[in-house]
Amino acid sequence: MTELAAAKAALKTQAVETPSWAYGNSGTRFKVFAQQGVPRTPFEKLDDAAKVHEFTGVAPTVALHIPWDKVDDYAALAKHAEQRGVKLGAINSNTFQDDDYKLGSICHPEASVRRKAVDHLLECVDIMDATGSTDLKLWFADGTNYPGQDDIRGRQDRLAEGLAEVYERLGDGQRMLLEYKFFEPAFYTTDVPDWGTAYAHCLKLGPKAQVVVDTGHHAPGTNIEFIVATLLREEKLGGFDFNSRFYADDDLMVGAADPFQLFRIMYEVIRGGGFSPEVAFMLDQCHNIEAKIPAIIRSVMNVQEATAKALLVDGDVLAAAQRAGDVLEANAVVMDAYNTDVRPLLREVREEMGLDPDPIAAYRGSGWAERIVAERVGGQQAGWGA
Amino acid sequence: MTELAAAKAALKTQAVETPSWAYGNSGTRFKVFAQQGVPRTPFEKLDDAAKVHEFTGVAPTVALHIPWDKVDDYAALAKHAEQRGVKLGAINSNTFQDDDYKLGSICHPEASVRRKAVDHLLECVDIMDATGSTDLKLWFADGTNYPGQDDIRGRQDRLAEGLAEVYERLGDGQRMLLEYKFFEPAFYTTDVPDWGTAYAHCLKLGPKAQVVVDTGHHAPGTNIEFIVATLLREEKLGGFDFNSRFYADDDLMVGAADPFQLFRIMYEVIRGGGFSPEVAFMLDQCHNIEAKIPAIIRSVMNVQEATAKALLVDGDVLAAAQRAGDVLEANAVVMDAYNTDVRPLLREVREEMGLDPDPIAAYRGSGWAERIVAERVGGQQAGWGA
Amino acid sequence: MTELAAAKAALKTQAVETPSWAYGNSGTRFKVFAQQGVPRTPFEKLDDAAKVHEFTGVAPTVALHIPWDKVDDYAALAKHAEQRGVKLGAINSNTFQDDDYKLGSICHPEASVRRKAVDHLLECVDIMDATGSTDLKLWFADGTNYPGQDDIRGRQDRLAEGLAEVYERLGDGQRMLLEYKFFEPAFYTTDVPDWGTAYAHCLKLGPKAQVVVDTGHHAPGTNIEFIVATLLREEKLGGFDFNSRFYADDDLMVGAADPFQLFRIMYEVIRGGGFSPEVAFMLDQCHNIEAKIPAIIRSVMNVQEATAKALLVDGDVLAAAQRAGDVLEANAVVMDAYNTDVRPLLREVREEMGLDPDPIAAYRGSGWAERIVAERVGGQQAGWGA
Amino acid sequence: MTELAAAKAALKTQAVETPSWAYGNSGTRFKVFAQQGVPRTPFEKLDDAAKVHEFTGVAPTVALHIPWDKVDDYAALAKHAEQRGVKLGAINSNTFQDDDYKLGSICHPEASVRRKAVDHLLECVDIMDATGSTDLKLWFADGTNYPGQDDIRGRQDRLAEGLAEVYERLGDGQRMLLEYKFFEPAFYTTDVPDWGTAYAHCLKLGPKAQVVVDTGHHAPGTNIEFIVATLLREEKLGGFDFNSRFYADDDLMVGAADPFQLFRIMYEVIRGGGFSPEVAFMLDQCHNIEAKIPAIIRSVMNVQEATAKALLVDGDVLAAAQRAGDVLEANAVVMDAYNTDVRPLLREVREEMGLDPDPIAAYRGSGWAERIVAERVGGQQAGWGA
Repeated sequence: MTELAAAKAALKTQAVETPSWAYGNSGTRFKVFAQQGVPRTPFEKLDDAAKVHEFTGVAPTVALHIPWDKVDDYAALAKHAEQRGVKLGAINSNTFQDDDYKLGSICHPEASVRRKAVDHLLECVDIMDATGSTDLKLWFADGTNYPGQDDIRGRQDRLAEGLAEVYERLGDGQRMLLEYKFFEPAFYTTDVPDWGTAYAHCLKLGPKAQVVVDTGHHAPGTNIEFIVATLLREEKLGGFDFNSRFYADDDLMVGAADPFQLFRIMYEVIRGGGFSPEVAFMLDQCHNIEAKIPAIIRSVMNVQEATAKALLVDGDVLAAAQRAGDVLEANAVVMDAYNTDVRPLLREVREEMGLDPDPIAAYRGSGWAERIVAERVGGQQAGWGA
Repeated sequence: MTELAAAKAALKTQAVETPSWAYGNSGTRFKVFAQQGVPRTPFEKLDDAAKVHEFTGVAPTVALHIPWDKVDDYAALAKHAEQRGVKLGAINSNTFQDDDYKLGSICHPEASVRRKAVDHLLECVDIMDATGSTDLKLWFADGTNYPGQDDIRGRQDRLAEGLAEVYERLGDGQRMLLEYKFFEPAFYTTDVPDWGTAYAHCLKLGPKAQVVVDTGHHAPGTNIEFIVATLLREEKLGGFDFNSRFYADDDLMVGAADPFQLFRIMYEVIRGGGFSPEVAFMLDQCHNIEAKIPAIIRSVMNVQEATAKALLVDGDVLAAAQRAGDVLEANAVVMDAYNTDVRPLLREVREEMGLDPDPIAAYRGSGWAERIVAERVGGQQAGWGA
Repeated sequence: MTELAAAKAALKTQAVETPSWAYGNSGTRFKVFAQQGVPRTPFEKLDDAAKVHEFTGVAPTVALHIPWDKVDDYAALAKHAEQRGVKLGAINSNTFQDDDYKLGSICHPEASVRRKAVDHLLECVDIMDATGSTDLKLWFADGTNYPGQDDIRGRQDRLAEGLAEVYERLGDGQRMLLEYKFFEPAFYTTDVPDWGTAYAHCLKLGPKAQVVVDTGHHAPGTNIEFIVATLLREEKLGGFDFNSRFYADDDLMVGAADPFQLFRIMYEVIRGGGFSPEVAFMLDQCHNIEAKIPAIIRSVMNVQEATAKALLVDGDVLAAAQRAGDVLEANAVVMDAYNTDVRPLLREVREEMGLDPDPIAAYRGSGWAERIVAERVGGQQAGWGA
Repeated sequence: MTELAAAKAALKTQAVETPSWAYGNSGTRFKVFAQQGVPRTPFEKLDDAAKVHEFTGVAPTVALHIPWDKVDDYAALAKHAEQRGVKLGAINSNTFQDDDYKLGSICHPEASVRRKAVDHLLECVDIMDATGSTDLKLWFADGTNYPGQDDIRGRQDRLAEGLAEVYERLGDGQRMLLEYKFFEPAFYTTDVPDWGTAYAHCLKLGPKAQVVVDTGHHAPGTNIEFIVATLLREEKLGGFDFNSRFYADDDLMVGAADPFQLFRIMYEVIRGGGFSPEVAFMLDQCHNIEAKIPAIIRSVMNVQEATAKALLVDGDVLAAAQRAGDVLEANAVVMDAYNTDVRPLLREVREEMGLDPDPIAAYRGSGWAERIVAERVGGQQAGWGA
């Protein structure tokens, strides 16, 4: 098989999980601008997610958020998904929107609040059992706003204790993905602020605990691809939350702010053996001002383009230049792949997959946008607080 | 008059304006944690603000936010304030919470939205006429999230045009304070992102337009006191929005994150002749998890402490060390003032002003916190969206 | 003329000035790694610069640095350049490497040091007279390391006074380009730290004073293209110092760290009418570990590629999408240009200019690298301290 | 014993190691400003370091840097130190100033360079045997400047292999302290860029490998005290390199840029049981423009002041407020300690230790500064390259 053929084959196997919440309304602390046609139920979110998969062919699963996507019958939800051609993916916990969580959840100074938070996580594993999801994704908003507010080390002890209880509950084939975040909503300390902290906890928990890299959750200037390479080397990279940023956790469309960085990340993923089902590639974005479904389609395409370019890096030539200490040539090999216009290649891939080569145009031509605006009238639009 | 006496005299004249919105609920994009006893009307906000002034003696005015503080009768509002010992201060415009403003307000691509935004600003001047406020404070959430979304330069032209119309409307003794912000809620471009942009616009508008420095609105590492010194030198410093930050626009209590920075800022204020009624010292903070009124009292005290330390810098000794190029000695003079515990001095100042030397304890002992929790039942708590 | 033809025509007129010092040794504070074949005289630097122009066709001028490039006979130097097909460009002053400048130059607390610094700047204008250079490029390392070390405002006064004297000395057709820098080598205050400060000084000086944007001289996250658009709108953009950075003022090859940013900058240049001889496009880089001449060739090519992509943005379609408030479409128009592989286009441009389509390969095949290694033996290699 | 007495007792046991290189010349990449009286030999550096200990009483050891402090007879050097009242401390390796190290040392693509680097580290352990030093401090300048330049993961493998060989060489009572650094002198990847990477390597190496926190080696906004608390909890905190920064690795005097941060760090040190001989407290600073010996004295005093304040935090009251979720009160307890002027307490401590209460004045009055200027004439001043 030629290299190009290998790249195409790999691209056809790619899977990008889309998050149910990205189909609902989101915004900043200043304002949530509601959009027309936004889903009102988890079922409608799945309908939208299915459209993304229908037109891209590489978005076969949908992450859920509990309690935002709480339903009485998860089997029915899973069946609904399958009928539309997608599956349920990771279960995301939410321990940040209840009044009890004002000072934290799993790290809260009060045992009763910690109990409530851990119980929620255990419930999420129950839901995984019901949906067949294999990944429990944990992001904790826990932290403090002021020096002295709470005991930094005590909070770590509480975190470790809570995670251990949840870890024990995981069944065969289930795992825990621990996300870190530099800051927000806490503004002084965050209890899992960096990959090192997440790694240290996962290491102690065991092989079912792995780290999630959210591309928007780092200090300015952080070299994310280095972290990816390191976590893969440590066999602790569980997955990605993709999005992009110019400033903080902006949650813009992945690839929109720094497409070269996304390419470098995907290169390290492939280099380190992470382009596999063991690593979950998920979107975690906010479409505050742009149309949501096409923005998600565009995001999936951006991941595809970065992946295609990364697949085109000529590894042998690169390795030779690196061994020779030829800085310019080694850099040129990488840039040569990056500067390639891979859109024709991806159009071919899509056609070979029986898809329209232009997913955005195909979606726009499908009438779906108009239909949901017309049909989704009344009810309560989904949003972060819904 | 001794230097200490001069410092005490200056501290007694200090005025820190508190913002009506800080008494209401606030939060992050993830969650607003409501607190008990929060005001439900602009009148109740003034009641709380009056308590801050009652116990600190240096918070005589209250900034309003339109439309959050819209009332039918501003004269009644002003009278209510005066009856409680405070006055109405700056009028803050809000052009970011209407659905029309999704893509901007005064910089919006559509003329009709710009018209609406400018009309709101003109209405704010009407309210200034009614309240006797002299300062129109303008913060624009305008910007873009994605490269290409709008024309950067075209937006500047629209901004200039809109500001010019509002400037013309200002009466004698009224001025326009233009605030800049590094980012948020826009995540790619912000239309007034730095002091340079605000300065350039104010310069063209004329002497009634001045720049506001919000201490949380800068890129990481920015030397804010340099900006303060420069704006004072250019006679374009209109005022401050005080708060503090570890990461982005965290809006923590002023002086909580970097008290040394606050001291350096106040030193440049005094050095540059800015400790005068010409410069407005305002708080602009969010008390998301801490009790609001005592947090504001503490913030006012933090400003007092930084000011007291700045007043204690021995200018003659400092100047001599600077002239001599004695880096360590010059730094030591400044640090000597900073390392002084000025709390005893401020207790004296308060006692001489007829106040309790410990404002926090006095507030706690006053029963106000318990009273508002008991009385403010029912109704709609004030918040950013109220 | 078609759009493509217009783009090609524009690309043929492009001019990127290379700096004499980039051909010499450079390094970090930890170590300067000397390279073989490095020039030992300003004449040899011009020989190397001529090679860059020979193979790229768009690097016709060379910036000098005084005193690094001090010679007895500037007419001879200019003639040497012309014989090799290039011209002398901007004169860069150096007021940071004399022991007297430990605490500053033009802002120094002592008048005698300021006098010396200003005299050096005046001497640079004399050299401009001799070389025919039109641009005096001023970068000041002035600043302080410790709070209190010197008077922030007093230093601004001294700066203004010194610049005014130099400004007066400028002849017809000469101008002053004032560069700003966020930090380094000063670590607390820098006397021209941001575009606002440079702009304010240039505004007061007059039309012959303009601002230089060094792409590595900003706080993390700063939107440089916004500054470019703003300075063009204010008619105060004098030129660029191109390089790239991941962290601080890394001085890597332009386009190496964030090629998308370089594209956005060039888009605003073109949009704002800055793609003209009025704006100087200069490189200012350090090739600490990579071969210098090919690195500079690559840098010139990177600027060309970014420019080509920016020229390909379909302005009409973009403007329509912006007017319609179609965020995704407007962004897509820009990304469509960025994602285009412009290397074939640039190969055509080069062939039409009578050049080898692959400048790097042509340089490597020319034998120049081997020749300078063989010939430049003995003597003192050029470097920042030379 | 009262709390104050306990604090005084603790302060008397404090030990801050000063680095031999801080007594020599240093600078930025732009210029090293030489100072008069700078040591010319390791012996003279020890003479200066002894003065710092003589006047502060808490700087009993001196870190060496190899090869900067290479001597023929380390026993003689150790004896020289002891005769002046100090001891030799950590041995710092240097694998960044030989031409072979242009592309790295222990991570270099070529095995021969890695061999040379590891041999140097092994030689440093030999020197430890000779000097009786227990700590081998490792900072690697290794990294890359350009994407693709080398294989990120391959470099980690090489790093692990090299460290393992050195680890095996460590004798009883000897340990390895691994330092991380965000960036510089490498500008794209750094091979040990964060605490997580250092921690992961130390964990695999074993109990004799521990992490060093250099307070200037973090991304903007990083919460260093969180890292301190976490490393202490993991029993992997080996020591500190103290200095301070406003921007990058500015290497200013510790406590000069953000004294509140230094206090918070010392609070977590004490809280986590790190105020013990197991954790090394070292300075690592550059005194580029200020007089070196008094700057180091001042730095030691700054550490003392931060420690004193941290010791004064009322742990019981704090814990109660934290348990009660009283954010303002908990913060107030911490701020109360920070706002205390501890200089009188430290003057008492010094007097009880038989020292002058004002170390700076005592040093200035000692005539040492004048003496070294007069005596240290001729020879080669020590510097980073010496």
